[in-house]
Amino acid sequence: MPNVITRMSSLFLRTLREDPADAEVPSHRLLVRAGYVRRVAPGGFSWLPLGLKVLRNIERVVREEMAAIGAQEIQFPALLPREPYETTGRWTEYGDALFRLKDRKGADYLLGPTHEELFALTVKGEFSSYKDYPVLLFQVQTKYRDEARPRAGILRGREFVMKDSYSFDLDDEGLERSYQLHRAAYIKIFDRLGLDYVIVAATSGAMGGSASEEFLAVASTGEDTYVRSTDSDYAANVEAVTTPAPPAQPVDGKPDAQVHHTPATPTIETLVDFLNNAGLGRTFTAADTLKNVLLKTRQPGAKDWELLGIGLPGDREVDLKRLEASLEPAEVALLEEADFAANPFLVKGYIGPKALQDNGVRYLVDPRVVTGTAWVTGADKADHHVVDLVAGRDFTPDGTIEAAEVREGDASPDGNGTLVAARGIEIGHIFQLGRKYADAFELDALGPDSKPVRITMGSYGVGISRLVAVIAEQYCDDIGLVWPREVAPFGVHVVIAGKDEAVAAGAEKLAAELDAAGVEVILDDRKATPGVKFADAELVGVPTILVVGRGLANGVVEVKDRASGQREEIAVDQVVAHLTGLAGK
Amino acid sequence: MPNVITRMSSLFLRTLREDPADAEVPSHRLLVRAGYVRRVAPGGFSWLPLGLKVLRNIERVVREEMAAIGAQEIQFPALLPREPYETTGRWTEYGDALFRLKDRKGADYLLGPTHEELFALTVKGEFSSYKDYPVLLFQVQTKYRDEARPRAGILRGREFVMKDSYSFDLDDEGLERSYQLHRAAYIKIFDRLGLDYVIVAATSGAMGGSASEEFLAVASTGEDTYVRSTDSDYAANVEAVTTPAPPAQPVDGKPDAQVHHTPATPTIETLVDFLNNAGLGRTFTAADTLKNVLLKTRQPGAKDWELLGIGLPGDREVDLKRLEASLEPAEVALLEEADFAANPFLVKGYIGPKALQDNGVRYLVDPRVVTGTAWVTGADKADHHVVDLVAGRDFTPDGTIEAAEVREGDASPDGNGTLVAARGIEIGHIFQLGRKYADAFELDALGPDSKPVRITMGSYGVGISRLVAVIAEQYCDDIGLVWPREVAPFGVHVVIAGKDEAVAAGAEKLAAELDAAGVEVILDDRKATPGVKFADAELVGVPTILVVGRGLANGVVEVKDRASGQREEIAVDQVVAHLTGLAGK
Repeated sequence: MPNVITRMSSLFLRTLREDPADAEVPSHRLLVRAGYVRRVAPGGFSWLPLGLKVLRNIERVVREEMAAIGAQEIQFPALLPREPYETTGRWTEYGDALFRLKDRKGADYLLGPTHEELFALTVKGEFSSYKDYPVLLFQVQTKYRDEARPRAGILRGREFVMKDSYSFDLDDEGLERSYQLHRAAYIKIFDRLGLDYVIVAATSGAMGGSASEEFLAVASTGEDTYVRSTDSDYAANVEAVTTPAPPAQPVDGKPDAQVHHTPATPTIETLVDFLNNAGLGRTFTAADTLKNVLLKTRQPGAKDWELLGIGLPGDREVDLKRLEASLEPAEVALLEEADFAANPFLVKGYIGPKALQDNGVRYLVDPRVVTGTAWVTGADKADHHVVDLVAGRDFTPDGTIEAAEVREGDASPDGNGTLVAARGIEIGHIFQLGRKYADAFELDALGPDSKPVRITMGSYGVGISRLVAVIAEQYCDDIGLVWPREVAPFGVHVVIAGKDEAVAAGAEKLAAELDAAGVEVILDDRKATPGVKFADAELVGVPTILVVGRGLANGVVEVKDRASGQREEIAVDQVVAHLTGLAGK
Repeated sequence: MPNVITRMSSLFLRTLREDPADAEVPSHRLLVRAGYVRRVAPGGFSWLPLGLKVLRNIERVVREEMAAIGAQEIQFPALLPREPYETTGRWTEYGDALFRLKDRKGADYLLGPTHEELFALTVKGEFSSYKDYPVLLFQVQTKYRDEARPRAGILRGREFVMKDSYSFDLDDEGLERSYQLHRAAYIKIFDRLGLDYVIVAATSGAMGGSASEEFLAVASTGEDTYVRSTDSDYAANVEAVTTPAPPAQPVDGKPDAQVHHTPATPTIETLVDFLNNAGLGRTFTAADTLKNVLLKTRQPGAKDWELLGIGLPGDREVDLKRLEASLEPAEVALLEEADFAANPFLVKGYIGPKALQDNGVRYLVDPRVVTGTAWVTGADKADHHVVDLVAGRDFTPDGTIEAAEVREGDASPDGNGTLVAARGIEIGHIFQLGRKYADAFELDALGPDSKPVRITMGSYGVGISRLVAVIAEQYCDDIGLVWPREVAPFGVHVVIAGKDEAVAAGAEKLAAELDAAGVEVILDDRKATPGVKFADAELVGVPTILVVGRGLANGVVEVKDRASGQREEIAVDQVVAHLTGLAGK
């Protein structure tokens, strides 16, 4: 069927001159002003005609690239029974972020945040032989997460559209192939969408698994902080940065540990000051001290909390996000007065490794705390510290943990250059889930030797509705949106600039010809001044604006490129060919 | 981008030889066996690749026809805040059929069953002038209803895909035009889908409003009963049948009403027997008696129940569905012993109009009970009836009500022929909502005289996911599905029938040529016997099956029409042209 030419006079669109009160970022401000989306509830929004067109264009690009790697599209319900999520523990682990509800019979349901369980169960239901594998499946689906802080409408909604795909392989090499296929497809997708993005090493979050990378759109307004190396391709989510450990040092010949009376030194600063004035013959900095932070953790489903001590150089703060990522899926909490009261060996401000280890408290240290390093740290007694406490000699941690803040200037983990910080918005995530879900549901293939082979899975997501905002964020200027052609709601925005009937007729004719040539056209046929129409055209952001005005009498029309602002006059009998050329038709 | 040819060897599809245990209707049985859908939960199902393709094809047809009448697509969230539904009373009225939930902050949400509220609010938000109207808006969306009896997977699911559209007009004439536009579009949609359907007069259900028609697919397994005339186009939902009232008769000259002692006649049957043996000089039938049924009703949000008496000819039973439709949105319940105890004027088995009216009980009668008709009815005293109680003389009802059962052989309300019963499945519903929602949200346009004009709405739905099952129901045979070309998952099913490498190569070549010509191809390249492949091809139901086998050596292939079963041999160098012709490419 032929397209119906979209007319501004009847389009369900009212552009706004004022910024919305709740707009936090440029994309949100412009998408609302240009009539692409409207807020309905916290984290819930409606797509008006223009927004829905952009969304569908993004979906199309994603579908094409998924089909190109042989992924097959299926679709699950969003309303899911509790049982499979109970089996994997996610019914509980997801915490408040999961929308839970009961049906009329009182049975428990949830609104799916991701669908690992259903995919694993469905593959188990259909496939049985090793010959059936590998298989890549995906869906483009509305998902639900009860975000604590929904933000900027479609940037972090509580209802959003995601493409999630899953790979099912017989072995780790297969998983690696499926992972690389997705990685390559994602690069194609985000390149086609014209995005400026980085691929960063990531942690796997609540979903379990090992190898994991995030695709982050570069955006100063982004919520995700990442770091990259000054001298290499290295980039990583802050949570995923691994601290390079210095080489271990010999313990022999180090001075003995000595306890000092250090009155009124409960902070690193007061301690360093004290030591430097104590006539010890050397200068101390915060980096010479070992700060011991006490926390408590609780494993999912467990009733009791356990104490955990974390030792890190005194010049570093604990980064709670890195800490939580390291301890996931366990819960983490700070100690309360009652905890100190119940554990009198914890002397606030003067906690040292000794009391922790003597009292069976698990003690993890920053990777910089290697064997042979000497530290000033708490002596487990008010107003006392110990100097020259040597790791591997005077205390032996239970392991290391990535909990310390990452700072600009830190050495890049790949050994090349130093780290600088940047901000981005997560647009894609790929990772090797491994056998967590296959184990939960006993997803096996019957191998060639008739023995079961446990399947290994990968999980890959693209935030489709979020991409509308992300592209808008990267493609806008002071006066409006500037869509890349691949996702623009229309190819050409035809403006009737003049009240002359011949002008209107000429514009109608060109619009019809463009439409017939396969270019999607929006025609501004409103009774409004050219100024109003131009402003709306700039705001709406179609890549090419065709102005049909007074020049028509002389056989010319004006073609304006929205991005560059360049205008050129083109002969009316050549403009359709010119524009179809631009649109690649 | 070119299509990727779908190969059975890697398609996520395992056909089943056995019928699923829970299959109630042929469409469900075949859609499961052929691997189109899988059940995930009661009323929740997943779409496997073939099912999703059919679903998308139906969506495409619906979108094209909606665009053709100028309707614009938008999309709302499925997760909606309580407030707008509270404003219209539907938060309560929807009862158990509404999925309700709370977010992390305890705020009330629902999963949208229909979106009248949101559409009305959104139009109010965007439009203000009479010049903005009319507007037609639609969405294709996943909807949720907590059905008491989910059925046959996609035939009546609790999560389903619907196209719902809404019209917004300045006046009743505009609404009528929008209604007729939708009616015509629906006829085109269901014709394109190849469906055998009827358009029946309907009631408006819980959504309020006036003119209303349902599109019912003819299906012996259908849940909806409707009646049609033997001699005209008249068809109606049983709830919507209006009873033709006979002409009123003169009251003058009718015998006086007389109370008779009629011992032990609490039923119509015993009463008629008694009267015919009482020597009254005439013969009575059940149709001469006036049966008075007592009920109680409660308006939405009201605390108290009210008594309601319904009088209907004694040869008719009350049809509860018709009764409820007539009284909607009020609740209806039968009386309990306590109600009789509290209202001693109700003499069970002998209730007459007099006691009801004397005691302020609302009394509605069947439309056949017109002025001048004389009835035998209860005398409000045990073992007593009154004969020749004349309507309009001895009692005056408070109005009429459609509550009596409709029977085959009843006169058609249009005066032509009599009614016969049939069964169908609702696939579309159009109706004139009127101003219910506009009133609730004060949706006004500023008129040319600067006075507000209250907008009038229409509401129009197509059950898209249900249509997959409905088409399957009408297009299947003993061995499988038989899709009409417009919605078939593929245009041609190519079967490699033979182990010869030349056969496989020839089939691959034809598949590639068909694909290049724009025909969607599924290629059965599995290592299976021709018998297995033929059986699966018949089950899957692609309209044309191309068998490439031994004949290839002689330059011929076989083309089989799935619907008719006809086979023909065609020269291999002509078959692509032949098949593209069939597919209309």
